[in-house]
Amino acid sequence: MAAPIARVLMQQAVHAKLQTVAASDGKDAKFVEIGRGVVIFVCFFKVCTIDDIAKIVNSVLNVRLSYCDKRQKNVSILDLPGDVLIIPQATLGGKMKGKVTQYHSNIPKEDGIHLYEEFVKLVRLTVESSDSFSGQAIHSGTYGNRQVLNMETNGPYTHCFEF
Amino acid sequence: MAAPIARVLMQQAVHAKLQTVAASDGKDAKFVEIGRGVVIFVCFFKVCTIDDIAKIVNSVLNVRLSYCDKRQKNVSILDLPGDVLIIPQATLGGKMKGKVTQYHSNIPKEDGIHLYEEFVKLVRLTVESSDSFSGQAIHSGTYGNRQVLNMETNGPYTHCFEF
Repeated sequence: MAAPIARVLMQQAVHAKLQTVAASDGKDAKFVEIGRGVVIFVCFFKVCTIDDIAKIVNSVLNVRLSYCDKRQKNVSILDLPGDVLIIPQATLGGKMKGKVTQYHSNIPKEDGIHLYEEFVKLVRLTVESSDSFSGQAIHSGTYGNRQVLNMETNGPYTHCFEF
Repeated sequence: MAAPIARVLMQQAVHAKLQTVAASDGKDAKFVEIGRGVVIFVCFFKVCTIDDIAKIVNSVLNVRLSYCDKRQKNVSILDLPGDVLIIPQATLGGKMKGKVTQYHSNIPKEDGIHLYEEFVKLVRLTVESSDSFSGQAIHSGTYGNRQVLNMETNGPYTHCFEF
């Protein structure tokens, strides 16, 4: 099997609030907030290129997940429709080797930020241009930040996919 | 590579509150709560047996993860020490096939509950008998429930491992 290019984690939330800028020098911290929707954590590996992002975004937004909703069928993010919060999460790339976790396959920070920006841009573009779009919020965290997050969920229905 | 026996997700939290019994017939819902510590989501696959659980628990509690703590080194759950909240999460077993998510490899509910109970028992036993134990809380969710969860984190440092 080829080395993975990215790992993506999705958790359903009814509300989530993420810090995007930490407080400093007497300035307040900044936050983004979503209502009912999906939190997407993403980590890119070294072998990932900018050309891979469209495929990953397409899969993430279209895959039908079990959310045990009232309709009792699996739905995608585009089906929902709901808000979206994207969070960069380098630790997702961790690989367990005995008692040690290795992050050797993770993309360097400078390259990762470009892929992350493209990922956020394409998620926004795809959700906003979909037939189900009705003005829902699309927010994203800051690459390289400590991800200070409050999340309320009535069942995260956590899914983790490798690309 | 052999088929995986379990998938485990760990997220660091400063506070988490999980519903263990839903409200019904005028009775209030029941919750468990932890302070600073780790939330462990767990999903077992069909091929997992009761004899595998000790190995999984040992790995989960001893693996050193990047939490970017003040000590600037990777630490394990037993090193921390912190509270532990265990949540069963069958959706973690989902596998993407085109636009569909398949849960075919997941263990049947009746078998899964036995493995989950053993997992919770062994985590409790191992944490409580470790040198670093100082009375921290160890709680667990109800197998098969909708996992209603509030989580506050100053960086979830999400890790996903397959066994």
